[in-house]
Amino acid sequence: MPTKRLALRIGIAGFGTVGQGVWKHLHDHRKPLEERVGARLELHSVAMRDTTKARDVTVPAEKIGTDPIAVATDPEVDIFCELMGGTGIAREATLAALRAGKMVVTANKALICDHGAELFAAAKERGARLYFEASVAGGIPIIKAIREGLVANRFGLIYGILNGTCNYILTRMEAEGKDFEPILEDARRLGYVEADESLDLDGWDAAHKAVILAYLATGHWFDLKEIPVRGIREITLRDMEWARQLGYRVKLLGVIKRDFKREEVFCSVEPSLIPADRILAKVDGGYNGVCVEGDIVGESIYIGRGAGRDATASAVISDIVDAAIDRLHNVPAFMPTYPSARIAFAELSAVKRAFYLRLDVKDQPGVLAEVSAITARHKVSIGSVLQMPAANNGHAHLVLTTHRTSEQQIRDVVAALRKDRSVLGKPLVLPIADFSAK
Amino acid sequence: MPTKRLALRIGIAGFGTVGQGVWKHLHDHRKPLEERVGARLELHSVAMRDTTKARDVTVPAEKIGTDPIAVATDPEVDIFCELMGGTGIAREATLAALRAGKMVVTANKALICDHGAELFAAAKERGARLYFEASVAGGIPIIKAIREGLVANRFGLIYGILNGTCNYILTRMEAEGKDFEPILEDARRLGYVEADESLDLDGWDAAHKAVILAYLATGHWFDLKEIPVRGIREITLRDMEWARQLGYRVKLLGVIKRDFKREEVFCSVEPSLIPADRILAKVDGGYNGVCVEGDIVGESIYIGRGAGRDATASAVISDIVDAAIDRLHNVPAFMPTYPSARIAFAELSAVKRAFYLRLDVKDQPGVLAEVSAITARHKVSIGSVLQMPAANNGHAHLVLTTHRTSEQQIRDVVAALRKDRSVLGKPLVLPIADFSAK
Repeated sequence: MPTKRLALRIGIAGFGTVGQGVWKHLHDHRKPLEERVGARLELHSVAMRDTTKARDVTVPAEKIGTDPIAVATDPEVDIFCELMGGTGIAREATLAALRAGKMVVTANKALICDHGAELFAAAKERGARLYFEASVAGGIPIIKAIREGLVANRFGLIYGILNGTCNYILTRMEAEGKDFEPILEDARRLGYVEADESLDLDGWDAAHKAVILAYLATGHWFDLKEIPVRGIREITLRDMEWARQLGYRVKLLGVIKRDFKREEVFCSVEPSLIPADRILAKVDGGYNGVCVEGDIVGESIYIGRGAGRDATASAVISDIVDAAIDRLHNVPAFMPTYPSARIAFAELSAVKRAFYLRLDVKDQPGVLAEVSAITARHKVSIGSVLQMPAANNGHAHLVLTTHRTSEQQIRDVVAALRKDRSVLGKPLVLPIADFSAK
Repeated sequence: MPTKRLALRIGIAGFGTVGQGVWKHLHDHRKPLEERVGARLELHSVAMRDTTKARDVTVPAEKIGTDPIAVATDPEVDIFCELMGGTGIAREATLAALRAGKMVVTANKALICDHGAELFAAAKERGARLYFEASVAGGIPIIKAIREGLVANRFGLIYGILNGTCNYILTRMEAEGKDFEPILEDARRLGYVEADESLDLDGWDAAHKAVILAYLATGHWFDLKEIPVRGIREITLRDMEWARQLGYRVKLLGVIKRDFKREEVFCSVEPSLIPADRILAKVDGGYNGVCVEGDIVGESIYIGRGAGRDATASAVISDIVDAAIDRLHNVPAFMPTYPSARIAFAELSAVKRAFYLRLDVKDQPGVLAEVSAITARHKVSIGSVLQMPAANNGHAHLVLTTHRTSEQQIRDVVAALRKDRSVLGKPLVLPIADFSAK
């Protein structure tokens, strides 16, 4: 039993940006962290794919290997940090470490999202533990806040800006009046976009995090396939300008809404209009912001860097410290506080929100009447209308906001609009995230 | 030893708003909290001053007493909650409980601020523990964030809106264009102002919290007397309007700024101008907001209700859960992670900030030249100037902002201005909290 010995040994798999950050900062701040833990924290070993690559952080040669599984199962390693990314070898190594009864720390949101149920079951079976603070909004201790700081609360609503890259792009589009493509090009050059761009731009990265937050709020692992996920590619600069005229800003929002009476959860990642006077509407650039509504504490908001070497390393190190304390003192694992065995994904007819609807239409008399007739037929009532001629092509832009209506109704309206001869191309539908308007 | 038994008994002293909130929510949410802790949480006893008073929350008669010390020292009580307030009997009861080796949870910022050093020493001596999450910004788990979530970091800067009552008053003044007095009258009627109004209005409540945050950032207990503390009574609606014209909003800010090279800390509570585009500038009404700058994680921001029965009860209950887990598993006490033995309060000549300076002057030629000559003589350079005639009395208002200058220089300028015959009354000096302008 390692509980009483005076050193805890840390093994790291993956030595990219985050791995190097963890090594560096843990090395530099080791003394005070060891005092806090009450034991030595020994940087024991690192597995890296390419041991010959030049890196900013130097590791003694005898601590370097290439096999993550070897680090994960090394009997000398107490705390295993999975910092490789991906869900292949990362899953294998994480499972191996958990099955060996180790404390495991990961920053890997895709891994937790896709395999959380399997991993936590393996951990439980072997008395191991899995820590994942760095997987959601590295610069904000949001998982600790939800699980510990707000432990008294049940969460009816958690929503926020969960992808720094999309927020960076939207912020710059708006600030500079530029379109999506040139700003994306810039973000690529700065290294802000994941190698697999779809993860950022199509909302998958944010969806991984939303699934993790949904687990914390409900104890249930939702399948990514159950969740409406959309990215920011279809947002034009004009949409951002019209949203602003209507008193909103456009943000990519992950939303988890739990209805305690119906035992239903709605979870989504969608570009959304958020009232311009809300705090989250002002969270700009690469920052993440999460708003949490607890049934006792009310609303609280957490804002910080979404990712980057240091913010993520800060979260990984706080997990390492917790893991060390938990191991030394046999503290039991945390679980979601108010899980529900019966929880289900909300029916589309039950989810009611207001929407922003942008149509390209023929610039001719009667179009607004036609569109209004379609919305009226589906019992969707209109809150506001903007109509603007488009540039030189006999088209017009028609921007509507609806009152609160069901997801199903708005889908039916869009289907009907697409069949209408005056409506050109695909309408853009964005939910309006105004949760104070119940 | 109580570590292995299956029930932890909770004794509460003080059954006002917060005490009742804790009792109610702990009672209602007991089941999931007990699962989390792995032991029963038994509401054991309550001491209240007046047992005959009608209250919203009903407690079985056999659990009610009047002697807080009896609850604090009751061998049956494992976790003692001090929810009386004040620093008299509250200090005695807290000390008695700590000396009896108990886990103690308090929401009492004045107690922690004034007697923190004594209380933590007593706790250490007896293997007791003192938890105080509810003492700073009840609706935000800020102490847990600083001590655990951001444990990897050293904190060079923590600042924020720490008093909900002042923020409520300032927000309403600005929103409604009303002066301080009528809004204060309203806040009194709504029960938002402490019985001892000076605690809120003169900044002492915020100062208690700033001292606690300074302890977390440095390990040092600063004396309230060392710290510049000012409230909001001297802020006029006109100051708020001029601040807005200059691109700022007026907030009562607690600031803790640590200089690691000089081993100095500056700590203050002052009404301050904050750039209008900062997140904290948008934290309105009864909310608190705290910005924390860690050397690894960068800036993170926490926003939530400042006080009130439920937000405070939420924080107390999360401390009770931590206390229960820590007791059951003998987890050692947390300390500030990067304390300094040599830390000193910053010299006034070393603290450099920009300032807002509002003067009432005689409306006659040459006044601006006189005032400029005085600032120039003290090497304080001016950033912007607004001059407006005052109403019907031959006076004028002169509003200046300075570039960054030392606290000592600005004090010298004000002293010189007060001797000038053209300057009427006392100049108002507010620091400009623009920490991004280094």
